[in-house]
Amino acid sequence: MTEPAPHAAVEAADIDAAARVVAPFAVRTPLLSFPVLNERVGTKVFLKPEMLQRTGSFKFRGAFNKLSSIPQAARSGGVVAFSSGNHAQGVAAAAQILNMQATIVMPADAPLSKRERTKAYGAEVVLYDRDREDREAIARDIAAKRGATLVRPYDDPLVIAGQGTVGREIAEDMAALGLTPDIVVAPASGGGLIAGVATAVKARFPQAMLMSGEPEAFDDHARSLRAGKREAHQAEGRTICDALMASIPGELTFAINSRLLSHGVTASDAEVAAAVGFVFRELKLVVEPGGAVGLAALLSGRIDAKGKNVVIVLSGGNVDADLYAKLVA
Amino acid sequence: MTEPAPHAAVEAADIDAAARVVAPFAVRTPLLSFPVLNERVGTKVFLKPEMLQRTGSFKFRGAFNKLSSIPQAARSGGVVAFSSGNHAQGVAAAAQILNMQATIVMPADAPLSKRERTKAYGAEVVLYDRDREDREAIARDIAAKRGATLVRPYDDPLVIAGQGTVGREIAEDMAALGLTPDIVVAPASGGGLIAGVATAVKARFPQAMLMSGEPEAFDDHARSLRAGKREAHQAEGRTICDALMASIPGELTFAINSRLLSHGVTASDAEVAAAVGFVFRELKLVVEPGGAVGLAALLSGRIDAKGKNVVIVLSGGNVDADLYAKLVA
Repeated sequence: MTEPAPHAAVEAADIDAAARVVAPFAVRTPLLSFPVLNERVGTKVFLKPEMLQRTGSFKFRGAFNKLSSIPQAARSGGVVAFSSGNHAQGVAAAAQILNMQATIVMPADAPLSKRERTKAYGAEVVLYDRDREDREAIARDIAAKRGATLVRPYDDPLVIAGQGTVGREIAEDMAALGLTPDIVVAPASGGGLIAGVATAVKARFPQAMLMSGEPEAFDDHARSLRAGKREAHQAEGRTICDALMASIPGELTFAINSRLLSHGVTASDAEVAAAVGFVFRELKLVVEPGGAVGLAALLSGRIDAKGKNVVIVLSGGNVDADLYAKLVA
Repeated sequence: MTEPAPHAAVEAADIDAAARVVAPFAVRTPLLSFPVLNERVGTKVFLKPEMLQRTGSFKFRGAFNKLSSIPQAARSGGVVAFSSGNHAQGVAAAAQILNMQATIVMPADAPLSKRERTKAYGAEVVLYDRDREDREAIARDIAAKRGATLVRPYDDPLVIAGQGTVGREIAEDMAALGLTPDIVVAPASGGGLIAGVATAVKARFPQAMLMSGEPEAFDDHARSLRAGKREAHQAEGRTICDALMASIPGELTFAINSRLLSHGVTASDAEVAAAVGFVFRELKLVVEPGGAVGLAALLSGRIDAKGKNVVIVLSGGNVDADLYAKLVA
């Protein structure tokens, strides 16, 4: 593993560059609006539906931008990543396109569909015990043995820049509508998505308020933003938001987020479940629990949205059919 | 009831006019593409996701265009419609916006969600027995008693023109991409959607091949197009495509469709169920069975799509949660 520790900042120009790299392969997702949602919330709401992205989540963007940067000479060693599922698929799909071998270290309790889909992109999946093993150590070990490049899920400037293309598209589409995004919310686990989105949106709309969205008990971003320094959440156990279980914000991402975000919002698992059902019944999109946390906060009245143009990133849709059936019942 | 028998043709100019009428209230749905779908089919496929339309199906377009044409003096009598569910919601939502009373005659076996959603738009719902009662007679009786305007589900030029805005947007978006739609498929029950879509698409792309999509046993359009005259299907019983159970093409719609369509394609209920599951797992959209019939035909190899740009209309997403859970399991 020759990866340097993260240190570089991400600027709008890096996201412009990432947009050029990912454009031929990533889906340019639309910005959607729904009368039923506007009426429910009482203001103009726009959704960025990243479940429509290649692999079913935004993660392909950052992964493809990162993998594309690996020099030809280093590509034969392949890539290794640790992920609960969406980063896994993003890295696997990007590696497949670029003809690289991918090894993914996933928790044994990751949703079955995420494991199966990762394998379907041609990756080797190595399972670990979320409570007892250190996924980073396992990944570093594989990287060292195989000469593989470690692809971090969030603390990498190229990954953040790739995720930032979500925000760049939001800014473009809102500008095309002649509207200002007053509030923009994206889910946060390690914080790469919201860091990239904040960088891109703030570059074009400096007055926009950016917010991270998290499960109520896994609120390390909300805490850290209040404290002004990285703090772990106090949660024990699980949340239905399997994609949002990182225990503490990333170093590089928090350096960005502490500067650009107004604060973090949260939603309970019950509120997330209700949001997933609302999106099924009324919006006809399949959103996974973690992908719906920002919308859940909005629908639960946890965001002061009155009179504001609100943009919510629905970050992914990779949910097992049996859990989904329970959530929408 | 003062509604004249259907006779007028629908032209592209009528659809342009409808587009101006519905634009302030209808969702301008995007044209979506998915790498996973292109790879699966081996050609470029574009989806028109009308489940993202107001009320969860395209039907709002035609209903709103029709209701907007009712003179102020006649509006106090309200409107009456018969529908298995999507037209019901379209008429109810349009009536609510225009401050008119709506009465909807629905089969007692219509999906619960469609009945509940129709009521939620403020309409009165009258149930009938699909096998033993004549829904048109019931609706005509209500219209006569209340001085209500009957809003036909498909055999009305203004309804067809409204549905045609789907095709107009497809043509616009394909032109913006610099692409020609070689094949365009839309589900058909009475045939209003495909008639409007064909009129709009053919006006801009005369060489495009237009096809109706139907459940295998409810193939009255496919039969009628082969025969060159309106023929009823021979199906007994039900299909999971509850929205596509009309027994014979409409008179006005068939006058259009027999001129503009190349032929009709069909899919079995099993193929439709598989398509609904594919759309859940891979595309992250909620499509109802009837809305997926065109895609089902494509995924089942029933359309010669090789080297063609294929556009498929996914016409709606109003499916009960329990049926949906079974279909995606």
